[in-house]
Amino acid sequence: MTLNQVTAQKVRVNLAERSYDILIGDGLLSGAGQEIAARLPGARVAIVTDSNVAAAHAKQLVQSLDLAGIASTTISIAPGERSKRFEVLQQVVDGVLSARLERGDAVIALGGGVVGDLAGFVSGIVRRGMKFVQMPTSLLAQVDSSVGGKTGINTAHGKNLIGVFQQPALVLADTQVLDTLPDREFRAGYAEVAKYGLIDRPDFFTWLERNWQAVFAGGVERVHAIAQSCQAKADMVERDEYETGDRALLNLGHTFGHALEAATGYDSARLVHGEGVAIGMALAHRFSSRLNLCSMDDTTRVEAHLRAVGLPVTLAEVPGGLPGAERLLDYIMQDKKVSRGALTFILTRGVGQSFVAKDVPSSEVLSFLQSVT
Amino acid sequence: MTLNQVTAQKVRVNLAERSYDILIGDGLLSGAGQEIAARLPGARVAIVTDSNVAAAHAKQLVQSLDLAGIASTTISIAPGERSKRFEVLQQVVDGVLSARLERGDAVIALGGGVVGDLAGFVSGIVRRGMKFVQMPTSLLAQVDSSVGGKTGINTAHGKNLIGVFQQPALVLADTQVLDTLPDREFRAGYAEVAKYGLIDRPDFFTWLERNWQAVFAGGVERVHAIAQSCQAKADMVERDEYETGDRALLNLGHTFGHALEAATGYDSARLVHGEGVAIGMALAHRFSSRLNLCSMDDTTRVEAHLRAVGLPVTLAEVPGGLPGAERLLDYIMQDKKVSRGALTFILTRGVGQSFVAKDVPSSEVLSFLQSVT
Repeated sequence: MTLNQVTAQKVRVNLAERSYDILIGDGLLSGAGQEIAARLPGARVAIVTDSNVAAAHAKQLVQSLDLAGIASTTISIAPGERSKRFEVLQQVVDGVLSARLERGDAVIALGGGVVGDLAGFVSGIVRRGMKFVQMPTSLLAQVDSSVGGKTGINTAHGKNLIGVFQQPALVLADTQVLDTLPDREFRAGYAEVAKYGLIDRPDFFTWLERNWQAVFAGGVERVHAIAQSCQAKADMVERDEYETGDRALLNLGHTFGHALEAATGYDSARLVHGEGVAIGMALAHRFSSRLNLCSMDDTTRVEAHLRAVGLPVTLAEVPGGLPGAERLLDYIMQDKKVSRGALTFILTRGVGQSFVAKDVPSSEVLSFLQSVT
Repeated sequence: MTLNQVTAQKVRVNLAERSYDILIGDGLLSGAGQEIAARLPGARVAIVTDSNVAAAHAKQLVQSLDLAGIASTTISIAPGERSKRFEVLQQVVDGVLSARLERGDAVIALGGGVVGDLAGFVSGIVRRGMKFVQMPTSLLAQVDSSVGGKTGINTAHGKNLIGVFQQPALVLADTQVLDTLPDREFRAGYAEVAKYGLIDRPDFFTWLERNWQAVFAGGVERVHAIAQSCQAKADMVERDEYETGDRALLNLGHTFGHALEAATGYDSARLVHGEGVAIGMALAHRFSSRLNLCSMDDTTRVEAHLRAVGLPVTLAEVPGGLPGAERLLDYIMQDKKVSRGALTFILTRGVGQSFVAKDVPSSEVLSFLQSVT
């Protein structure tokens, strides 16, 4: 079994009857059938994937399922954020129903965040909830979106406004598939890895400052960084599964980040999610410094590390230019983390000391944005 | 407060942090605003209703909300089962998002089962779950669909195949609105009332045999019958919220009933849900008698009561004719209560002694159907 390999790690997410394992390691995909058969005996599966990932990895997964005696059907969607919409949801739902899968059967998400969010939503609503397995193939999905049960699609009103909380029965992160990930995408995913250090794990952030090159090179350090990230997210989700409190800390950098994504029309040629988060985290520290919450030394340190790995940290680095401060504030106000009109922000007192700040006056945000645009 | 009235009753559904009250009584709609304000302080609401119900009751509800200082927006859909589909779901979701409601705000379902199922689903997926309030206006919805958290829509593959479990924060059943319900619809809803007696409350069934005329006439007996039904359903839901076991007993009469609805093309001119359930319950008893599980006396007694209130109990009573036994079996096999190919039926050992029978051979069902078609 692949877990015997030196580089494989397991993280347990403890959520009572919804508890599950996250398996992380090189080459795990070839043992996927066995892992599923052990956890969901007798289940059949629908593999939801996108055409790019299908070409690279679907065959290996289907073979592994075959070996374990698991019947599977594959449903492929177009790659990209555009697939997170009602029409595609309906198509995938139809595919799962056409395969006559039942409540005890499983939907497998084989792909990045888009596939995971969409397939998870499907598994949460077909027959009022089927089983769900995450097989994330991007760094972003392995360290963030595949863990914690948030699923959803976008609407004209905003991103992820429709969805359910649907915990997977298993997350299987084959780190070997990252070897073929484009550099830019790996870097963007790394922003979320750094985020866990910045939220409440200063030692992990220090470790990343010293070892990021090895993480980017692959091997033991990469598995370690991903497992640490999953552990950090698992801890947060265990404390607050439905995001009524502390889980909001995971949005560090995301309020500014989402506004930047919206302001660039979700055009991945200009800005991808992780890059928005990198700039957002830098701004969250800088904003905290401006409010005298966080020392400028810490803000400089955070910016230096993100810069070192090649991530953007300022608004000026977004190609094609951005709207002014007031328009950016509008985008922030439209974000779903606005609670009854008051602005909720994740601010920080320093590296690894972030906190949820409610009732941040929009005037403060505006004047900060004016100072950095 | 209306609860001081002699005829008002309260049933509590105990589901830990998802617990809620069901309020039942004449004239409760006029106190709806107060009840919501007490349970969801600060919440705004979207009222989802259909054009028929809106004309009859929306004004009274909006006034009551206004009085309690609750801002509301009304989203009206076309009446009828056809509205339980993806396109209408998308429209209502859009309406709720356009009103900029947040996670702490509520969707109110004001209407029958269609409105409740659709609005509940919407409330379960917008922002990954908003608050939800049921205000059922049909007998069927008051005694069945508004309690227990099942929501959903239909697809080409079958009814209620897409949805979520979403418990309401409050069910408010104004029994006065039943005064204007067409006789046929009240009778159809009564089939579900009788069902609770047949499942496991023989004393309630005996009470209904003696008091059904008073129940149909309205007043104290009607409130009592509805409250007893809600209590019976609440007990079942408390035991098995997600239908992994006993809750399936609530499907007594529904396996045959759903097949009849499908076989008549869901044409309400020919057969409405409650009528299908009435025939289904009679058949479930007759089938149990054929299997020597239930005495023919009990089957005759059940048929006699359903007949007395004016409900159909045989296949011959479905206007327009039905397909043969084999085709009816096909419809049964397509029903979602088929678990991994084996047929699950609710059978009975007599009035109030029903049980879940797994692995019922389809050959037995077929030869039974051949004997009654």
